[in-house]
Amino acid sequence: MSDLLVSPACLEFLLFDWLRIDGKSGFDRETAGAILDMSSRLASGSFLSCYKRADVQEPYLDDSGTHILPEIAEALSQFRELGLFGASFPEELGGMGLPQSLSLAIYGLFASANISAAAYAMLTAGNARLISAFGTPAQIDMFARPEIEGRWFGTMCLSEAQAGSSLGDLRTRAVREGKDDLGERYRLTGNKMWISGADHDASENIIHLVLAKVANGDGSLPEGTQGISLFIVPKKLPDGTDNDVRVAGLNHKMGNRGTTNCLFNLGEEDGAIGWLVGAPGQGLPQMFQMMNEARISVGMGGAALACRGYRHAVRYARERTQGRPAGQRGGEPVPIIAHPDVRRMLLQQKAYAEAALALCLYCADLVDDGSEEAEELLALLTPVAKSWPSEFGLVANDLAIQVHGGYGYTRDFDVEQIWRDNRLNPIHEGTAGIQAIDLLGRKILRSDGQAMALLRRRIAATAEAARASAHWPVQAGVLDAYWDRVEAVVAGLRTCDSAEALDDATMFLRAFGHGIAAWLWLDMALTADAGGTGFAVGFASACRYFFEAELPQAHAWLAVVDGHGRSVRTCPDEAFI
Amino acid sequence: MSDLLVSPACLEFLLFDWLRIDGKSGFDRETAGAILDMSSRLASGSFLSCYKRADVQEPYLDDSGTHILPEIAEALSQFRELGLFGASFPEELGGMGLPQSLSLAIYGLFASANISAAAYAMLTAGNARLISAFGTPAQIDMFARPEIEGRWFGTMCLSEAQAGSSLGDLRTRAVREGKDDLGERYRLTGNKMWISGADHDASENIIHLVLAKVANGDGSLPEGTQGISLFIVPKKLPDGTDNDVRVAGLNHKMGNRGTTNCLFNLGEEDGAIGWLVGAPGQGLPQMFQMMNEARISVGMGGAALACRGYRHAVRYARERTQGRPAGQRGGEPVPIIAHPDVRRMLLQQKAYAEAALALCLYCADLVDDGSEEAEELLALLTPVAKSWPSEFGLVANDLAIQVHGGYGYTRDFDVEQIWRDNRLNPIHEGTAGIQAIDLLGRKILRSDGQAMALLRRRIAATAEAARASAHWPVQAGVLDAYWDRVEAVVAGLRTCDSAEALDDATMFLRAFGHGIAAWLWLDMALTADAGGTGFAVGFASACRYFFEAELPQAHAWLAVVDGHGRSVRTCPDEAFI
Repeated sequence: MSDLLVSPACLEFLLFDWLRIDGKSGFDRETAGAILDMSSRLASGSFLSCYKRADVQEPYLDDSGTHILPEIAEALSQFRELGLFGASFPEELGGMGLPQSLSLAIYGLFASANISAAAYAMLTAGNARLISAFGTPAQIDMFARPEIEGRWFGTMCLSEAQAGSSLGDLRTRAVREGKDDLGERYRLTGNKMWISGADHDASENIIHLVLAKVANGDGSLPEGTQGISLFIVPKKLPDGTDNDVRVAGLNHKMGNRGTTNCLFNLGEEDGAIGWLVGAPGQGLPQMFQMMNEARISVGMGGAALACRGYRHAVRYARERTQGRPAGQRGGEPVPIIAHPDVRRMLLQQKAYAEAALALCLYCADLVDDGSEEAEELLALLTPVAKSWPSEFGLVANDLAIQVHGGYGYTRDFDVEQIWRDNRLNPIHEGTAGIQAIDLLGRKILRSDGQAMALLRRRIAATAEAARASAHWPVQAGVLDAYWDRVEAVVAGLRTCDSAEALDDATMFLRAFGHGIAAWLWLDMALTADAGGTGFAVGFASACRYFFEAELPQAHAWLAVVDGHGRSVRTCPDEAFI
Repeated sequence: MSDLLVSPACLEFLLFDWLRIDGKSGFDRETAGAILDMSSRLASGSFLSCYKRADVQEPYLDDSGTHILPEIAEALSQFRELGLFGASFPEELGGMGLPQSLSLAIYGLFASANISAAAYAMLTAGNARLISAFGTPAQIDMFARPEIEGRWFGTMCLSEAQAGSSLGDLRTRAVREGKDDLGERYRLTGNKMWISGADHDASENIIHLVLAKVANGDGSLPEGTQGISLFIVPKKLPDGTDNDVRVAGLNHKMGNRGTTNCLFNLGEEDGAIGWLVGAPGQGLPQMFQMMNEARISVGMGGAALACRGYRHAVRYARERTQGRPAGQRGGEPVPIIAHPDVRRMLLQQKAYAEAALALCLYCADLVDDGSEEAEELLALLTPVAKSWPSEFGLVANDLAIQVHGGYGYTRDFDVEQIWRDNRLNPIHEGTAGIQAIDLLGRKILRSDGQAMALLRRRIAATAEAARASAHWPVQAGVLDAYWDRVEAVVAGLRTCDSAEALDDATMFLRAFGHGIAAWLWLDMALTADAGGTGFAVGFASACRYFFEAELPQAHAWLAVVDGHGRSVRTCPDEAFI
């Protein structure tokens, strides 16, 4: 069944032939290959085998807490035994010391097998990384280490019912109680919403990282985002007693059902005990480190599900016979992969899925790089890595259903669940609209243009190589012209009213993402050509398709942004009847 | 709750102000308004109230047959009491004698409330119309009349497991047995797949219309589509005994769960008794009359669900407060309808949903017209009416989820189910790929160009009126230019190899549909302006949006078709790894 997952060989190609992480990290290919193979075996075994069941048998809440599918707990326990919770953590913290790029590739394997099971590990690693980055040595020892070992799991508690995307409206309150070995101790009261993994029976303890506002002396809460601080709130306190946290209910989702998602109350009695992480008022900037990692992981989820659906569709299209080539009467029916419309749907899926995969790995490689230049570029690309794989991964999954025809609409096949699971990705960790404002507003229009200049240099380098290549000189020119156009559109937007400039931000984000995907496809095709690997034919086909059929559409999106249409802004409320 | 359905006022506007059906059919507006109101009350009552339950409580099969949700059976019984099964049938057959356009509008109301319940009525009417058109008076009296009364339900049995889109591969066999009052009597054996409504406990009898091949003298079946004939195969025979038909299993679908969908065996014992309809070998042309009606109904289903999702999204966006306008700090959160990205998502939904509605009603009005010109145009537009509302209705529903954020991903809200329900529409009654080949191949490239010329004349008339109007002269030019471009692309395709010309048929269909939607929006906006109705503001906004943001994308699709890219056709099988 491993032919249904993200391909370990493709991951190895992207990491070592394309990104050349061995030259940067010193991490050798053979070891990485062995880790990817081991991960692929576990993913295609225990994770994939309960994919359907995770959908049908939802988590439930009773007096003893929240219960998840036992097979998911068992799969995570095997994941722990392989040390994979600590994949990307340094050895001195008990981790495996893998580069982020390789660690994200491993996550992609598991996400393609069973994303709602893999999510527990992703959340736990993000949580532990935040504590490792900003916590005290005592906090790291007490809370992060058991997470890195995979004995305790972690969550991130941001949203409240009235504060989803708008964190300045948080009402969870923290009152200082004193200080102990674990730092400044507070009592927290409030209600959190949409908390993934906030309760379950798969780990010994659950470490919540909670955003809350430290109350003013008069008991009032500071306004806006300034007063927000970050707290470690464990389900079970270090002395083994229960903290004052309680799950108030589970959300019943369309997909991604293996991951519990909870309404969650802090301080129904004396207040939940929480220890401040870092400095007071630094909650948001700290959390955004985790959020950025989480955003790239969400993108990887979208990419992984796109790959999964694609591989189901290819398998089905090779096996299913129906119809005959156009113009032919009589004779035996042919496998549907012979029909141009089916081939287009497969190629389109591949073009989305593998560019999405590459984009996420590229971003993780920038994390590993860690230079100032890499950080600038990463900040620019993170909203794209979150949203483009989510949006076009979902389109790919829609096509996977279509390739299956009526069978794809039944629950006997996996593609309908893959589509439902993937629909979460354009929503959580910041909707596409939020990412769009981040990209166009903060990262482009309100920036000094350094990151964009860096990006253009890297794109120019690819174009230059393509211009000198046997197959790709045409695409080189098309790519440069496309990015000239992006910059011209941005220049136009700089002359607009700053709020109105963001009116079409979502379409800009989409067009920007397509430009990135075109660049990566060209770069990957060049690498595959040079290496003479088994990926050359597929990558060249997808690259040609992307430039031929996708980039022209993206030009039209840019034209819409550039036209800066008034229809949305001038449309009065009474239009919506 | 009726504010969640397709708006009866909007339907009335489209039928009477825009299509002016009163002038054509003599059907008066007041009566139609009363029927729409009555339908709306039933739809927003008994149909809408079991929408969620129809999803959760799936049909099940036991020894006594297939059982559907009792509330659906009850809703259909109320539908029958109002005489709505016979809405579009002449009074002499026991019907209400409504024009098809009004009848389709009524279906839209019910489909927006509960599409999987409404489907039983839609299938039954299509079945009865086919028997009325091609059956003998005795067949009509025996089988069609009870369907028009709504006491018996009907199905259409085309597909088999090995023959979905490719009906020439049917293996169901019919052997002549004799002749009686009901006509030529045959014994049928075979296995049908994907049969909606093939079994349930909501009607006294179920009339199957079955495609089968009449066996040659040596017992072999004719090859291809030539030998296919159409048979009436009732579940219960006229003498009250059971026919030899048996449901072998139910398909478990992602959505649309209220409609049973069955694997269905004919002739497990002595052969199922069926009466030939019309002449032998005429099964496909006859069935295509019903298929064409069914295709417009599928389009209406897509349109109705788009309208339903849109109205949920508008309601949520007005009620939900979150965030503040760009650049504003502090102050109370605003309803999210104030955010440009949310407004765009609403306007986009409206632009798809109501153009889709209009397109389907336009086609039904062509059916009512019945002139040779109308038939030509209808044949050209039917694949568009089937596919464009299905594809863009689904996009609209995706946006409805996005407007709801995380809430939209939960089963506490309806939008996730609407999206799942709508995903069927691009598949059944001929996938989008099949419609695309029908449009571009049969209806355009292999035609004499009459239908296209007719269409252009109608579009030119709209453009001329727009050119003379106060608000729309610019759009008039844009519309003409777009359709000139469509014709230029077609002219280019005529010079290609005939099989290769269809390589990008699906993208051509999409672009053609956008051109139709632009035309209809302009035409509707002109009517709304002239009438000074409450729809003028909304229609003008959607029309402006469509020309500003949608048509430029469609130009890009045409460019892709025109470029006649080789990437799909030249891509070798080994690319798909």
